[in-house]
Amino acid sequence: LTEITWDLESATKGGYPHFMLKEIHEQPKGIQETILRRLDADGLVRFDDIRLSKEDLAEIDKIYIVACGTAYHAGLVGKKAIEKMARIKVDVEIASEFRYDNPFIDSKTLVIIVSQSGETLDTLAALREAKRKGARTLAITNVMGSSIAREAEHVIYTWAGPEIAVASTKAYTTQIACLFMLALDMGYKRGVLDLAAYREILEKLKGIPEKIKAVLKNDLQVQKIAGKIKDAAHGFYIGRGMDYSIAVEGSLKMKEISYVHTEAFPSGELKHGTIALIEDGTPVIALATQQSLFEKSISNMKEVKARGAYVIGVTLEGNELIEEVADDVLYIPKVDDMFAGLVGVVYLQLLAYHVSVMKGLDVDKPRNLAKSVTVE
Amino acid sequence: LTEITWDLESATKGGYPHFMLKEIHEQPKGIQETILRRLDADGLVRFDDIRLSKEDLAEIDKIYIVACGTAYHAGLVGKKAIEKMARIKVDVEIASEFRYDNPFIDSKTLVIIVSQSGETLDTLAALREAKRKGARTLAITNVMGSSIAREAEHVIYTWAGPEIAVASTKAYTTQIACLFMLALDMGYKRGVLDLAAYREILEKLKGIPEKIKAVLKNDLQVQKIAGKIKDAAHGFYIGRGMDYSIAVEGSLKMKEISYVHTEAFPSGELKHGTIALIEDGTPVIALATQQSLFEKSISNMKEVKARGAYVIGVTLEGNELIEEVADDVLYIPKVDDMFAGLVGVVYLQLLAYHVSVMKGLDVDKPRNLAKSVTVE
Repeated sequence: LTEITWDLESATKGGYPHFMLKEIHEQPKGIQETILRRLDADGLVRFDDIRLSKEDLAEIDKIYIVACGTAYHAGLVGKKAIEKMARIKVDVEIASEFRYDNPFIDSKTLVIIVSQSGETLDTLAALREAKRKGARTLAITNVMGSSIAREAEHVIYTWAGPEIAVASTKAYTTQIACLFMLALDMGYKRGVLDLAAYREILEKLKGIPEKIKAVLKNDLQVQKIAGKIKDAAHGFYIGRGMDYSIAVEGSLKMKEISYVHTEAFPSGELKHGTIALIEDGTPVIALATQQSLFEKSISNMKEVKARGAYVIGVTLEGNELIEEVADDVLYIPKVDDMFAGLVGVVYLQLLAYHVSVMKGLDVDKPRNLAKSVTVE
Repeated sequence: LTEITWDLESATKGGYPHFMLKEIHEQPKGIQETILRRLDADGLVRFDDIRLSKEDLAEIDKIYIVACGTAYHAGLVGKKAIEKMARIKVDVEIASEFRYDNPFIDSKTLVIIVSQSGETLDTLAALREAKRKGARTLAITNVMGSSIAREAEHVIYTWAGPEIAVASTKAYTTQIACLFMLALDMGYKRGVLDLAAYREILEKLKGIPEKIKAVLKNDLQVQKIAGKIKDAAHGFYIGRGMDYSIAVEGSLKMKEISYVHTEAFPSGELKHGTIALIEDGTPVIALATQQSLFEKSISNMKEVKARGAYVIGVTLEGNELIEEVADDVLYIPKVDDMFAGLVGVVYLQLLAYHVSVMKGLDVDKPRNLAKSVTVE
């Protein structure tokens, strides 16, 4: 008789050493599901769970996106998307602050709540406060039947599948995919985008999973870079516009699982004080994926390089000019400015992952953290 | 014949070892000047340089405050003041981002530009962009005849006097005083505040210089605390609401002149990932000056204390309950929630100052920094 020991945990990791790495690799599929399940026979966006008509959307004059942690960072990307595509002003608020801040809410206000678990206590409390003040509410969550899903007026589910690692990856990128779909739908229904523009943007969005696959294939280069920065005491992530919205998430991943105190800054803001912290070898991860801001981004990279920073650039293929200033460069396939961050952030997830592994840390269960924060 | 050597620099330091310390001590007088010079015979606020009538103010439906660095932090306080007293929605934007972000501006938008020097290039460019898009513009600056003063439609001068130290202190607190005066004036003219409420708030504001003097007298205790944290590799500043707006400035001072990589967080947000960085002895400066949020702030302090943080509390006299969780406490005199930050921030300036001195750094001229940033 041979005894078979069955390790349930490693089985569900599907051959990956950690849940986080598995979930990073599940992103192309998760994003694809999130998009394709929402297309009708004409290939247009249709949300089954939200009933915001064209007339409802025309009435909305202000949007708050409210969330915590990584979901808040997805909201920062959502703001850029909605403001650009639907031209409605969006404020992204941290849930624990929003609750006590007497926000400007009336019946023309849409409050979008983002939470992977749907149980985040601060976010749930913000949802209740928004409802109490008469806002329309829409939740983006990964868990059906969760408190937030039940209490919000409208729900969009991310089809990410269960996320086990404490540090969120696929829930985050599918939240962003949902926000892009929502922005597109709003932009079209409000007449900001015509059908041709709408279809063109949607086609580009559908192409994102393939671009992320290309990034995942470049994992070995990320590992090498991780080896160079793993002993850093601290560091920075910088970017302009959409790149800044992504930088904050890259920085949070590095804090959460690798315990390196990094901080994200808008590239142009660093010189107003914080640049005093840059010295020989300080790692600076510099995102420069926005073609319209590329030159400005390069000049900010030169500023930190001149003070001795070790600069890791993230940019699009074709921007080889960056090599004149960056010590290492991670290239992403050519993609529209709007979606470059969603592709580039995968490099930042991998970078934090490899630093954590190299430091021998508990990647999936970092110290002090719980998967779902149900205390205030 | 006796040769007299005249050290101009130390003469103008007025007996202080550094300009920064001198300027920290000049704050009660600077704030007093800023307020008293703006009061008319009836003791009401009157701005000579701005001509925004009651009718103009009634038309404004949205305000952007745009600035960089420390002036941006003054804007965060201004947002709280204006939203509370005048109930106009305010967005505070980093100038280098605002310029390229296609902001929602029309003739009903007031853009408030804050810059000590009046020459900050990013901020000047933002002012021009705002004007181009048709906004009404108002500058708060310390330098008469500066580019920003000349190009803005309306100007309020901070009466801080020349600020020599690179790290801004008195320019910042006088900017805040101006923003409070502006908020009061707007609130009254828009009918949100009646004359009694207006006079009551103004009286409280006039009392701030005396409260700051009390804080300055407690310098020795700040020095002792500085001695305990001076070797820290990194740290955090946390606070809720107005306290968070102050925490960001405290953290920036520590970065600028003491080269300790600290970061500010809304107290309730830290647990969504970043708390992984807290270990034995990590300094956390916890502001708890807002009476309405005091209990919540204490519970956030307990969270970091449980992970080993060295907690320095800043609160009002009478809140001795804080001693159960904080390792050290800096008390400020009793003061309204609205103004507590303006008083408490002086402790944070002194703390950064003493850490810098103890580390033997060049307090007045930190590495990599210029007083006025006139490059992009």
